[in-house]
Amino acid sequence: MIPDTAYVHGGDVYSRPVRLDFSANVNPFGAPEAVKAAVRSAAEDLSAYPDPYCSSLREKLAAVSGVDKGHVVCGNGAAELIYQFAAAVKPKRALLPVPSFADYESALLAAGCEPAFYPLQRENGFLLTEDILTAIGPGTDLLMLCSPSNPTGRSVPRELLVKILDRCRETKTWLFLDECFFELTDEDKAFSLSDHLKEGDRVFLLRAFTKAYGLAGLRLGYGICKNREMLEAMSRLCQPWNVSTLAQAAGLSALTCPEWPQKARDLYRAEKPWLLEQLTALGFGVLPGDANFLFFSGATGLCETLREKGVLIRDCANYRRLKPGDYRIAVRTHAENEELLRAVKEALHV
Amino acid sequence: MIPDTAYVHGGDVYSRPVRLDFSANVNPFGAPEAVKAAVRSAAEDLSAYPDPYCSSLREKLAAVSGVDKGHVVCGNGAAELIYQFAAAVKPKRALLPVPSFADYESALLAAGCEPAFYPLQRENGFLLTEDILTAIGPGTDLLMLCSPSNPTGRSVPRELLVKILDRCRETKTWLFLDECFFELTDEDKAFSLSDHLKEGDRVFLLRAFTKAYGLAGLRLGYGICKNREMLEAMSRLCQPWNVSTLAQAAGLSALTCPEWPQKARDLYRAEKPWLLEQLTALGFGVLPGDANFLFFSGATGLCETLREKGVLIRDCANYRRLKPGDYRIAVRTHAENEELLRAVKEALHV
Repeated sequence: MIPDTAYVHGGDVYSRPVRLDFSANVNPFGAPEAVKAAVRSAAEDLSAYPDPYCSSLREKLAAVSGVDKGHVVCGNGAAELIYQFAAAVKPKRALLPVPSFADYESALLAAGCEPAFYPLQRENGFLLTEDILTAIGPGTDLLMLCSPSNPTGRSVPRELLVKILDRCRETKTWLFLDECFFELTDEDKAFSLSDHLKEGDRVFLLRAFTKAYGLAGLRLGYGICKNREMLEAMSRLCQPWNVSTLAQAAGLSALTCPEWPQKARDLYRAEKPWLLEQLTALGFGVLPGDANFLFFSGATGLCETLREKGVLIRDCANYRRLKPGDYRIAVRTHAENEELLRAVKEALHV
Repeated sequence: MIPDTAYVHGGDVYSRPVRLDFSANVNPFGAPEAVKAAVRSAAEDLSAYPDPYCSSLREKLAAVSGVDKGHVVCGNGAAELIYQFAAAVKPKRALLPVPSFADYESALLAAGCEPAFYPLQRENGFLLTEDILTAIGPGTDLLMLCSPSNPTGRSVPRELLVKILDRCRETKTWLFLDECFFELTDEDKAFSLSDHLKEGDRVFLLRAFTKAYGLAGLRLGYGICKNREMLEAMSRLCQPWNVSTLAQAAGLSALTCPEWPQKARDLYRAEKPWLLEQLTALGFGVLPGDANFLFFSGATGLCETLREKGVLIRDCANYRRLKPGDYRIAVRTHAENEELLRAVKEALHV
């Protein structure tokens, strides 16, 4: 929870009425009906404490992810795990490529660490390149990456990611890799490090149900980490019952619906190139994003004008390295995307 | 979440089948039907992020508690707020009367503080006495109290609590007072410090929906604190979306059902003295608890024997200052209490 100050994230559907929310990167089909039914059914018994081990859910997640149950940790949304992880590592020196999701920095500051920023270049579409390898040294306690990155949508190329893993092993650097958009990433770019992990590796992979299964309101994320000491350290910083009974039931149900993120990916295959083309035709500079959202730049003030029309997009001006006129939109259904474009055209008076 | 190690709390209904759970101190009537309906209805839209300000819920809680909205913080269960609070205070010296709820100590250790224990006396029924006042000095950064106390059920006498508040003001000691059992406490003993707080006071009152409204599985707690710096510090240690949409909806609904904890208190008025008498007749030493549970002592091994019969009670041997043969039971409906007594008698072969 945050005090009553200005909200810096997307998804603010509370302070004013919203007709269309393109600011949150969530599956446009919402949650599967089976998951809603599982939540309704779990609501019949709210008075028992949740299983503090998340035993059934972790068992299933482990099977799906091809790791041991002991390598899986669940959280009250992926966001909670970011804070728990940073507090458990307590790095002296953390390296953070920017722009990046704001809560990495917040979590590091909460853990008493002022991160060193590794600036990504606008000229190069904010793509992470091999230069990062020279920035990782024996003094680097932690590197925090997101692939595809939020808000730019750029993936770390597969070969580079493996080189980064190798370099981090050499320098004993913790590698935190946010894979929360994994299930909604273009199939030729979707790549997880989970198959590359060895026992004891200082690597933490972050996953979420939020985006792929439309469960942002319910809060359910998980991590994959083959370092037991880290998982134990994280658990000591946290209450035993952080994952609600409803979230555990929803997660178990979601895992029986692998077609759900697939349905969204099928939609993106047509919608993303079309939306990119349309925005480009309107004069915006659009990055070729690999995930379920697009990053683009152009005239300032677009956000406010759309807000008045009941359409939310993400103003990216408060990200490090970004500026007014930088925006992020979720890719949604064709009808919604058309409505967004109509609103944008009206805003631009074209 | 905790790793796959032995579980130290009550409410473990997952590792083996359980017929009757007397180990968790929750309203025996479960959750109100209106709250279940609110959760089912909120389950229709799971994909929007929760309101990070918990704005509507905090507004209602403030009105009910007679404080400003800015003095209310919500959490993913009261337990989360214990960890957030300890991490924000980061005390050098914390004073912890024991026996007490285990997570106070865990949260302090997580915040890097080895607490000083203030031993409560068995001879005196573990009642907190005026002696505590001399233990609070200018070097005491934090005192953590629970009233009525878990697991003993003893309240801090009203006059003493006010003296403790005054003493803490003198010594600039943070006072953390867990009032999670407030709504289920005998009416002549129920007493909150909320009416005594001044702006800027270093006092944090912890409250929960868990017990009074049977919502342990859903996770919803809150705190009352008139120190804005503390609430801001706590929020910096935490993700923005820690309280799920479902929990916020359930809380709002629960606040329209004040008769629900009252119904439980009406039950306790008859059941608690009766249960106390029955257990005493069986040879147990029973404390006169003020909350919705009873603490008693007697033969060791009772827990295991009852467990085999599918009945869970709380083994208190792992609390500081307590020993094998110390137990805690929730007070439940008459039929359930009778069944518990039958099982206890069988276990004792009487």
